[in-house]
This record gives sequence, structure tokens and C-alpha cells, in this order.
Amino acid sequence: MGVSNEKNYICTAKNSMTKINFTPGPSQLYFTVEDHVRQAFKDGIPSLSHRSKAFEKISAEATEGLRELLNIPSGYYFYFTGSANEIWERIIQNLVEDKSYHLVNGSFSKRFFEIAQMLHKHPQKTEVEMGKGFDETVKVPTDTELIAVTHNETSSGVSMPLDAIYNFKRTNPNALLVVDAVSSLPFPDFDYTQLDSVFFSVQKGFGLPAGLGVWLVNEKCIAKAEHLVAKGISIGSYHNIPGLQAHALKNQTPETPNVLGIYLLGKVVHDMLRRGIKNIRQEAEYKATLLYQTLQNHNLIKPAVADPVFQSKTVIVAATGEHTESVTKLLLEKGMQPGDGYGSSKKTQLRFANFPTHSKEQYELLIDTLNSYA
Amino acid sequence: MGVSNEKNYICTAKNSMTKINFTPGPSQLYFTVEDHVRQAFKDGIPSLSHRSKAFEKISAEATEGLRELLNIPSGYYFYFTGSANEIWERIIQNLVEDKSYHLVNGSFSKRFFEIAQMLHKHPQKTEVEMGKGFDETVKVPTDTELIAVTHNETSSGVSMPLDAIYNFKRTNPNALLVVDAVSSLPFPDFDYTQLDSVFFSVQKGFGLPAGLGVWLVNEKCIAKAEHLVAKGISIGSYHNIPGLQAHALKNQTPETPNVLGIYLLGKVVHDMLRRGIKNIRQEAEYKATLLYQTLQNHNLIKPAVADPVFQSKTVIVAATGEHTESVTKLLLEKGMQPGDGYGSSKKTQLRFANFPTHSKEQYELLIDTLNSYA
Repeated sequence: MGVSNEKNYICTAKNSMTKINFTPGPSQLYFTVEDHVRQAFKDGIPSLSHRSKAFEKISAEATEGLRELLNIPSGYYFYFTGSANEIWERIIQNLVEDKSYHLVNGSFSKRFFEIAQMLHKHPQKTEVEMGKGFDETVKVPTDTELIAVTHNETSSGVSMPLDAIYNFKRTNPNALLVVDAVSSLPFPDFDYTQLDSVFFSVQKGFGLPAGLGVWLVNEKCIAKAEHLVAKGISIGSYHNIPGLQAHALKNQTPETPNVLGIYLLGKVVHDMLRRGIKNIRQEAEYKATLLYQTLQNHNLIKPAVADPVFQSKTVIVAATGEHTESVTKLLLEKGMQPGDGYGSSKKTQLRFANFPTHSKEQYELLIDTLNSYA
Repeated sequence: MGVSNEKNYICTAKNSMTKINFTPGPSQLYFTVEDHVRQAFKDGIPSLSHRSKAFEKISAEATEGLRELLNIPSGYYFYFTGSANEIWERIIQNLVEDKSYHLVNGSFSKRFFEIAQMLHKHPQKTEVEMGKGFDETVKVPTDTELIAVTHNETSSGVSMPLDAIYNFKRTNPNALLVVDAVSSLPFPDFDYTQLDSVFFSVQKGFGLPAGLGVWLVNEKCIAKAEHLVAKGISIGSYHNIPGLQAHALKNQTPETPNVLGIYLLGKVVHDMLRRGIKNIRQEAEYKATLLYQTLQNHNLIKPAVADPVFQSKTVIVAATGEHTESVTKLLLEKGMQPGDGYGSSKKTQLRFANFPTHSKEQYELLIDTLNSYA
């Protein structure tokens, strides 16, 4: 490429923050967020007392909106935390006396396992290499108290089929089944009655500024935490389940939370409700199909996850190999910011978030651009 | 009061979120925050990757700005958490093997003590009733590993004289001295060399949206956490000191943090640096003197903290007794939102934050209004 293109690259790279952001998270903001922030300032939300009725209303708007959007049955409760990392820790503290079991196939599922070790539990795992998935043949140790499944490995773009997840409940009815849906919700249409706990963070599929984790638990989780307390086991302090639950029932939080983040979550969830979760899911399917077909038919780039059964619909990873740098450059020139490959795959893969804020038109531009690279 | 005033009250009460907010936290936003948020959206900060060079720069801007503003010596490090509640927990996990010692004189210092209990340590305390303070005569048990001091009890408006705090270090050189400065910084001109750890949350004196805690530790704290690890004690997981420190040295965080919150903190700290910390502190002294004089000379309202030695300069509590409701009403009519008394004092006290964002003019209006109530 000549000097003029080089210049163009440098010039657009400087503005990379305002490009279409395909990084899996923090990702492109949901397109209504800036307007909601403006309104929030008009209404004094950023300095609102978290012990006011107005805050309780905001908190209820977020959790009741999520309940409707995701079709959550009764007997399940939402808690707010600082991050999904925090939820990993709270799950191990509150729901595991000694043994959790982890399906590890990437950096994030591995980290969940390591957190259990750091909290001096005795987690067990089945591990496969990055890019591989798990099916129904996985055998869970019979003394497992909790099965930790990562629905969508953000690092590798491997997703776990829902039936394979539910199967753990059928074959291990006494263990709590916990699903990390950090980079997949609101896309998956989970049957929550098959799951005991699910969690996500808002800066991915919900397109919000980072700094808020959302944790869903059922009555069995609450009972387990209380059981551990009764046995004299510490389950943490200000963010243990009994404390979170007592506050959640009043639409409050134990600490001063990210009030603005909770407000924005409620607003975006209601925008999604108006758009319709069915539409959002159909569009996600359409965009994913388009991109996987493009990668499948490309002569230089391929999907990083070969088996279609395990291909994530929300974080699509391309094996770009030696073309990584030049594909990145081309995309940046066209106003698109791809996500780097994760960790050791940084120079050989690119990741593309397929979240509700990424429009069909943006995906079509992405695909046209990838097709023009041949 | 007649019908027209009643109407006026209801009308202004509806807009209470846009009044001058004297609640001690979340409090009035620093007056530059909205502009910084607007710029942040222009620059793509709310969806910026926390693993980017741009984020590292933002993080460094906040911590280096704080270092300059507060005159922090070398060998001290800043960590970011979700809240000050979280820091209470992290302090106990990382810095206490068995025995912490707490000076309890209100709801927040008491909560710190209770968190140590919930984490199954064996904390000890000296407790005085709300509204009372501690002086240099307090005797600390000799086997204490950590002394927890609340510089400013947000619930009662009691502050601890700095010399009394430093005295703990002189008389207990082997214990770590930890100061909760949640509702006082950036006002106090601490000699940090006398302290091992200090923490605050951003929604009080820094006038920022809630959802971020800031934790300062020195090398002794890092060594203590490493000592506990070496002894086989769990010090938590993603937010333990060794992990926080390793990331802080790279201007990063272990988890995806509240990126926008860290950005705004850096911006407001630099606004304060331009204004000058000396000016900010002098103005705080002026406003506090004005309000305490008003309360002292008032025929119906008095300072809730009688002893001037213990009167907080940043959270000023008025004993409004039977006048609480009518004083509140009068203030609301004039466009001012007082903070309720805390807990059981809700109906007999009002609290007034005196933070850098509260101008002299606003304080003069407050004082004129209080004087008109007689």
C-alpha cells in the first residue's frame, strides 16, 4: 500500500474510538445509551441517594425489565455487583463448601476454576484446548456441589449447546448448575428452570459502560448459602447472598452501587423490550449466519471454531493467521474496529462481537469488506 | 403556611433531584462532571477496552493526579474497587490474619468491625455512642495486627483529630494503621507517612457518580498480604493485593472496571489541581466555620456534635429536633436538599455535606435560610 493509504490508516487509527466497535467487550454502546445519559443528568440520577424511593424504582425497573426480557420464572432474584469477576468469587464463597466442578475450554472458564482454588476450595475440572467445546458425554464427579459452565467462551468463540447444559441438571440433580453468560445474554433463550444461577456483565450484549455485574440466583442458591452459614463457614461479608437477598427484596443494594449503571441498564432493557427479544434473536441469527458463511467460503480466512455445533452466535472468531494485521488495517480504514484475538491468539485471530447494538447494515459492511480481501 | 406555599412545596419537591444536594453521598456532582461525560462519549471512553494503551493512560491520569493532589509519598499505590464497602472486606482479607481493632462511634465504623466478624476474624473494638469521638487516651490491645480508624463518621458528623490518628502509629508501631476517609477526602491534609492504608469512594468529596472505590496501600500492606499467602491463608481472589498490585504497576485492573468512573475521577482531580488543594481546603474551613457559628448561635437548632474538637468539617450535622420537618421544607422551598439524619436520627437531625463542589455562595444561601428560621 502506498503513502496515501498509510496516511489514511494513521489518521483513522487516531479516531479508532469512534469506529464501529466489534470488540467483544467493552463493546459498542447500545445506540440509545448517550441519550439516556443526557436524561439521567437532567434528572439528577448520578447523585441520587441509593436509599431513596427514586432509586428503588430505578432498581425495580432494571430487574423487572430483565425478568420480562429474559423470561425469568418466579423464585429467581437479581443481584448487582461490581463485575462478573466479582460474581465468580461470590458464587464460590456462597455456593461451595468444598468441591465445584468446572468445564474449562478457554481463559475465562479457567479463571473461574482458579478463583475457586484461590478461595481454598477443591475444584475439579475437565479441560479441553481452546477452540474446542463440550458435549453431553462429559462425566461430572458425583461429589460435585456445583457445576460451572461457561455458555460462551469470550476468549475462543466456543459456545455450549443448551441441551448439553441442561443435561448436567438431569444427570446431576443434586449439584447447583451455574452458567456464565457474560458474552452471550440477551441472545440465548435459556430455560431458566433448568439452571440455578446465571450471570453476565453489562458491557457486552447489553451495550452499556463497564462497571456492573448482574447475578441471577434461585431459591436453591439462597438455601445453600444459608446452609453454609449454619455450618459455620464464612460466605463473605457485604455481598453475601443473605445480605444481597434482603436488600434485593427492597430493590436496594448493601453498598452504594453504580446507580447510573443500574439506571442505564433499566433503560436499555426497556428499549430492547420495545424492539422485541424475538426480533433481537432473529437478527443475531441472521448476522451470525452471514459472517460464518463468509468465513467458511473465504479463501484466506476461516472460522476459528471448526465444528458448527460449538460456534458462538455472539462472539465470532476468525482464524486470520498471517493476514491478521492487513485485515485489521483494512477494517480500520472502513471505520470498523475488530477485536484482537485473545492472549496467545492475538496475532492470528480476530474476534467479532454480534450483539444487539450491531446492526444488520454494520454486519453487511463487515462482510463486504472481508469479501473484498482476497 | 398557606395553600400557595403548600403547592410550591409539592412542586419543588417533584424537582428535588435538581436542587443543591447537601446529602453526604451520593452528593452534589462536581460542577464539571457533566461536561466531562459529554467529552467521554465523544472520545468513545464508555466502550473503551480496559486492555488498551488508552485505558492505561486514563488510569495513570487518575492515580498520578491523586498522588499530586493529596501529596502521596512514593511506596504507596492506588487500587480501584467497586465501592468502599468492598475495601472494608479486602482490608480484612488481605491485612488481618486474626485480630483487627476498631474504633466504633457510628454506623460505618461499626459495619467495618462486623465485616471482620463475617470473615471469621476476631476483631476487637472500643465503642462510644454516636456523636462522641476518640482522643489519644484510647488503649489498643497489644496483639492487634491492624487498627481501623474512621476519620469521618458519615452517620454522626464526628471527625477524629489527625494527631490522635498518628498517635496510634507511635504507640503501636507494629500494627497497620488504616484510615476510612470515605466522606472526608480530599479535605484532610494527611501525613501519609504516618498511615499504612487510606480509602474513599468517589461519590462524596470528589463529587462523582457512585460505583468506584479508591484504595491506597503502602509496601507494608503488600508485605502483609504476601505473608498471609505464605502462611496458607486465603486472601480472596481477583481483588487480592498481589493481583491488584501486579495490575496497578501496569495501570490496569484485574477485572473490567468502571472505566468511565476512572476517567471522570482523573478529570475532576485535574480540575481540583488547577483550582489548588490549598484553596479547596481554605474554602472548606470557611464554609464549615460559617455553618457551625450559625448553628451555635441559633435559638432552635444546635450542632449535633457538641465538642468542637470532634466536629467534622466535611459532614456537618445539625440537631434539628422537632423542627426537622419544617426546616427541611423551608430548605426545599429555597432549592436546597439537606441530607436526612442517619438511621434512628432521621427525624431529629439533618446532615450537610461540605464538599469541594459546594460553593461559598451555596453555603451562604444555606446559612441565610437557617437564620431566617427562628
